[in-house]
Amino acid sequence: MFKALFLCRLLTFNLRLNKRLIMSFVNVSADCEFPIQNLPYGVFSTKDNEKKRIGVAIGEEILDLSVVKHLFNGPILSSKQDVFSSETLNAFMALGRPAWVEARNFLTKLLGTQDPTLRENTELRSKAFVKQSEAIMHLPATIGDYTDFYSSESHATNVGIMFRGKENALMPNWKWIPVGYHGRASSVVVSGTPIKRPCGQLKADDQEVPTYGACRLLDFELETAFFVGGPETKLGETVSIKDAGDRIFGVVLMNDWSARDIQKWEYVPLGPFLGKSFGTTISPWIVTIDALRPFVIDNPKQVPEVLEYLKDDEPFTFDVDLEVLIKPQSASTPTTVCKSNLKNLYWTMKQQLAHHTVNGCNIRPGDLLGSGTISGTEPLSFGSMLELSWKGTKTVPVGDETRKFIADNDEVIIRGFCQKDGVKIGFGECSGKVLPADKKY
Amino acid sequence: MFKALFLCRLLTFNLRLNKRLIMSFVNVSADCEFPIQNLPYGVFSTKDNEKKRIGVAIGEEILDLSVVKHLFNGPILSSKQDVFSSETLNAFMALGRPAWVEARNFLTKLLGTQDPTLRENTELRSKAFVKQSEAIMHLPATIGDYTDFYSSESHATNVGIMFRGKENALMPNWKWIPVGYHGRASSVVVSGTPIKRPCGQLKADDQEVPTYGACRLLDFELETAFFVGGPETKLGETVSIKDAGDRIFGVVLMNDWSARDIQKWEYVPLGPFLGKSFGTTISPWIVTIDALRPFVIDNPKQVPEVLEYLKDDEPFTFDVDLEVLIKPQSASTPTTVCKSNLKNLYWTMKQQLAHHTVNGCNIRPGDLLGSGTISGTEPLSFGSMLELSWKGTKTVPVGDETRKFIADNDEVIIRGFCQKDGVKIGFGECSGKVLPADKKY
Repeated sequence: MFKALFLCRLLTFNLRLNKRLIMSFVNVSADCEFPIQNLPYGVFSTKDNEKKRIGVAIGEEILDLSVVKHLFNGPILSSKQDVFSSETLNAFMALGRPAWVEARNFLTKLLGTQDPTLRENTELRSKAFVKQSEAIMHLPATIGDYTDFYSSESHATNVGIMFRGKENALMPNWKWIPVGYHGRASSVVVSGTPIKRPCGQLKADDQEVPTYGACRLLDFELETAFFVGGPETKLGETVSIKDAGDRIFGVVLMNDWSARDIQKWEYVPLGPFLGKSFGTTISPWIVTIDALRPFVIDNPKQVPEVLEYLKDDEPFTFDVDLEVLIKPQSASTPTTVCKSNLKNLYWTMKQQLAHHTVNGCNIRPGDLLGSGTISGTEPLSFGSMLELSWKGTKTVPVGDETRKFIADNDEVIIRGFCQKDGVKIGFGECSGKVLPADKKY
Repeated sequence: MFKALFLCRLLTFNLRLNKRLIMSFVNVSADCEFPIQNLPYGVFSTKDNEKKRIGVAIGEEILDLSVVKHLFNGPILSSKQDVFSSETLNAFMALGRPAWVEARNFLTKLLGTQDPTLRENTELRSKAFVKQSEAIMHLPATIGDYTDFYSSESHATNVGIMFRGKENALMPNWKWIPVGYHGRASSVVVSGTPIKRPCGQLKADDQEVPTYGACRLLDFELETAFFVGGPETKLGETVSIKDAGDRIFGVVLMNDWSARDIQKWEYVPLGPFLGKSFGTTISPWIVTIDALRPFVIDNPKQVPEVLEYLKDDEPFTFDVDLEVLIKPQSASTPTTVCKSNLKNLYWTMKQQLAHHTVNGCNIRPGDLLGSGTISGTEPLSFGSMLELSWKGTKTVPVGDETRKFIADNDEVIIRGFCQKDGVKIGFGECSGKVLPADKKY
């Protein structure tokens, strides 16, 4: 009888495990984006301790890994605990996937209800947990290089129709190459950083010559981005499509702020430059691929068939709901202007990385690779004001107001989450408020 | 009489000073590129001391600044001597122009014939000097971001004629904007690093679909690049044209290796990407603006007049002879294929930097800004094989062989120097040997 009860309990426990209903001893409300199944990594400081520390979000708390690093006793991390004393995640990223799996397994155990190590140690708990509401978040890694792709077919098509007409909407290379460009790493900032409306050269179609002034067509771009991990590669080495997945540490939300008028005048023939480099906002918490794995779905069918070095059978497309909201200064709540999904990408992150290195370009842990604007096929799913207002020909309702592009003091907020079997995995917020330009416009 | 002799000597000394004929106690041959008037900065190590150290080239020696740092006793550097113990020049660059001037004045005195401090200290001298022939050179700074411009009118015109015809050679924005793009920082390497021929997607005009293979049209681009100095700016701040000069630490030679076939298929609409990011070679010694100042000449006349934020009366164009040589594996000596000059740039470095930051893009010490290919108007002055072979329609003699583009095992060498009043200021070499691709072509 006792044995039967024990077996029954074990079974229930396993079922809960299988259904990923592992619970944390930390209180996590039902709609919280940071349950024990998520465990995203970030870098934070507090008012009374300005040192930047690596933390993991759990419920409304952050577990400070610099405080509990001595507990990482697995085969890899027991001799690498110092990566958790760093002010960035680069060293941990560099350790590679086996170390990430070991850390995740350990943290799942440490924060679970079964292990007393932290749960029962009041003193350690009081040092190890910081409320998210009291934390100042920082960039999670030093970004050596930032690359931005252009991987949503709907977005590329929309932009193509607007600028080249329906017949030539997609460029001939688009279905062969995950088209991308080098972006500016210095101006990638963490959520909450204000973005000043940029000034620059503008030339309207009816102007003979350009003028200097503030951008009039300020836009957001709904994107995600992933951080590269594993050891630095050497110049001349490639990362094969097979190995690319193990090189992807995790994903953040990204707003690739865009000055459409600056961009339009400058970008031929060398691509986007000052129309982008005045600021790129990312969310502070890096959601790992392991946390997203339950939400994987089949990759989109690629026709024509891609070249061999880009072929991949492994599903690496993720069903993550994405949303963009705008909050004008006068409004008390933000208004949703776009609902899209991470699955609206034609090229996978693995394909982006394999392509990026096919020429021998070396990568470093902490490199950031953006998805490109993630638009779906429905008008409400378009991931930029350029598309939502269709080049400024329509207005977009925002609370009691309307917008064609972003106004001064508007706050733009990107959110993302996936949900399944009672577990919600969220990304937190990627937000930024637009400050007026130095020059009136 | 004695007084008269003294005055006469003082006068002679001053004249020599004015004529910049200060001599070093270190032996410097007449055709050496590193006299005491140059004093370029670099980072080196040696076989028996693998630590990277900051050095200054003088004659055929390197003065190891980590060994003499305690002697920097000026008002700024006496409390900042530690910048010379660093493994990169970033911290010294960050101090800004007053510190650079102080360092240069001090080094001119220390290495001159008058000051006994180092000259007479046999023990210190034996520790402080390393032969250049025994040094391993490294990247002089950690490059946060690398940007490449497109500032030679002849080059932009040549490329325009080849790809769009004579009528539309220059894009409408070219004379208004110092056109540029974000490059890949990770693949910037120091002179001497072999460059592997890249693989990637290629599509000839007569092919229906692209294929994967090794680049067939491998090219060099003759460029210079400057390192940004001064403290990091904040996002949203600009660097005015007036202040831009004080933000330019110094100049190196650069070979912006280019895979023309990869570039052609990928670059519309987002600009160069994998056609460039397989390697960019720079010379190891940073020649400071103060060393180049005697060679300043008037800026080119800009018509139409540029916008206010780009206007500058200060001459900031430098008369520096540049040369590209190719050495096939079978040849015993390299052949000159191009002779150009740094003055063949339409946009000045100050204009490039002011434009780069006009949108609030933040800059960091160690950022690298390339000139773009420096072509003159004469065919022999064209700064790339694309132009020299006019898109492969002509052959270029290289020793006993000919080239249209770069062959495997070719070494490409860029040199640069300026000469005046008996002083030669040189850049050393920027060289790289092309290794065969992983895949045959």
